[in-house]
Amino acid sequence: MQLPKEVQINEVGIRDGLQLENKILSIDEKVDLIVKLAEANVKNIEFGSFVNPKLVPQMANSKEVFERIKDMKGMRFIGLVPNIKGLENAIEAGVKHVNFVFSASNTHNLQNVKKTTEESLEEYKKIYKLASDNEVTLDCIIATAFGCPFEGMTPKERIVSIVDELIGKGVNLLSLADTTGMANPKQVFDTCLEVSNKWPSKQLNLHLHNTRGMGLANVLAGMEAGVTSFDAALGGLGGCPFAPGATGNICTEDTVHMLKGMGIETKINLDKLIEAAMLLKEYIGHELPGQVIKAGKSSKRYTVKQ
Amino acid sequence: MQLPKEVQINEVGIRDGLQLENKILSIDEKVDLIVKLAEANVKNIEFGSFVNPKLVPQMANSKEVFERIKDMKGMRFIGLVPNIKGLENAIEAGVKHVNFVFSASNTHNLQNVKKTTEESLEEYKKIYKLASDNEVTLDCIIATAFGCPFEGMTPKERIVSIVDELIGKGVNLLSLADTTGMANPKQVFDTCLEVSNKWPSKQLNLHLHNTRGMGLANVLAGMEAGVTSFDAALGGLGGCPFAPGATGNICTEDTVHMLKGMGIETKINLDKLIEAAMLLKEYIGHELPGQVIKAGKSSKRYTVKQ
Repeated sequence: MQLPKEVQINEVGIRDGLQLENKILSIDEKVDLIVKLAEANVKNIEFGSFVNPKLVPQMANSKEVFERIKDMKGMRFIGLVPNIKGLENAIEAGVKHVNFVFSASNTHNLQNVKKTTEESLEEYKKIYKLASDNEVTLDCIIATAFGCPFEGMTPKERIVSIVDELIGKGVNLLSLADTTGMANPKQVFDTCLEVSNKWPSKQLNLHLHNTRGMGLANVLAGMEAGVTSFDAALGGLGGCPFAPGATGNICTEDTVHMLKGMGIETKINLDKLIEAAMLLKEYIGHELPGQVIKAGKSSKRYTVKQ
Repeated sequence: MQLPKEVQINEVGIRDGLQLENKILSIDEKVDLIVKLAEANVKNIEFGSFVNPKLVPQMANSKEVFERIKDMKGMRFIGLVPNIKGLENAIEAGVKHVNFVFSASNTHNLQNVKKTTEESLEEYKKIYKLASDNEVTLDCIIATAFGCPFEGMTPKERIVSIVDELIGKGVNLLSLADTTGMANPKQVFDTCLEVSNKWPSKQLNLHLHNTRGMGLANVLAGMEAGVTSFDAALGGLGGCPFAPGATGNICTEDTVHMLKGMGIETKINLDKLIEAAMLLKEYIGHELPGQVIKAGKSSKRYTVKQ
């Protein structure tokens, strides 16, 4: 079993985790959570998105949140942008790192950003130029990279062809997103291996959901295919708009707990991360899907009842 | 990624799944569930245990359940026995397949069956003889094979030494149980590979829990180490006596769903299995940890809202 020595975790709970919640967290609450995450040595945090606040009111305060955190040392704060307008707003806010997202599935992309996949790829050229001109680092997330709730499983040839186009237009890190948790470990392994074999110099990131319980199995499969960067959401928050009651993103503390047990370095302090998840639970006001916050770490010891 | 073509699933929900529930299912309810499982082509079912009914009242009707199901065709019904007394009762009930369970951890075994591991291994000789004399097939489950909530992680050398003793005393299938969900995928892979490399002719089974979210990742790691037999519980029922709120066994329908997605044959009808899980939910009267019953299968399609 070939495994990496070290893995980078990107916290997406403040964005992907919160965007479907009924309760909208305040600027103060989001900043508190980000400070807690930073104390746990989580360095890469997607803090919000620059989308239409009428469509995603949970993210309307992203600019104000960034204003409060932007001077924190040693951190990489990432804003999500779905189009050129979002990038303009992110640049205006002084954001230095953005994720551009579009879907491999036409139907999903039309639902999400009212564009075909081809139109988003066309827009990407302008986005890449505008980001470069403003010295903003730009990573690219391919949503529904493994499956789409409307179109079904995504053939890996589709991903290879999209990556090919992106490489031609200039791209740094590529992120493959299992947006609604449809991927299985064999598919993750095969797709990631194909992409990384074809473009060995490009860094590959996985954005996985645990909708059908396969989240951490997919992390394992990804690592075996050489992936060393994963998105995860504190507490496993996230949900799925198509499946009420289903769980969302892979849970950051469950992921870090598994990696730690396997001897894979993340540089994250798990105890402080669990504290951050407990604070999130308090703020959001309901139980979280994460399991380590309920069961405790594997290393927890019990004393025998006499 | 080396994966098996076919995997055997052993349903343990009627035993391990139910034994910690507050509600005690009736004989009729258990029989209904077993019939539903059989309709889904689940052939191997642990239907109950022969333990002190004062200690585990949920299992007190195991004998009566067996009386009702024993003539079902093509099924392998297994009763759990923790000691020679349990085996005697199982034989008296006409049970043809038993699982003997003891713990790799002394402290856990003392708590569970009031014997040291050595004493249970000594008793195993009598159990093996009594089972053989009565033409009862006997499989052996090593509990806390990866970790013990009192003693911590179980070194694989400990498992190798216990297996060594068991082989000397005569044993068919060996089952390694992650009783409280402490195992991580690397540990599962390393331990299973060591055991199967040393005793290639012995069949190895994994009994995994999802207490800390690593259940299906451990299934993947086990398969990569050559394991082709797994216990799982309908709906992911089970719980953990040490961690209220934590999830229990790996969920049968989530496991079968993952394997199906990966193209690994289980011969189980997933739709009928999901029906069985829904019936269990109705009988037990609360939400189940299983995720596919909430999210639907990956192959579920949604229509676009106009």
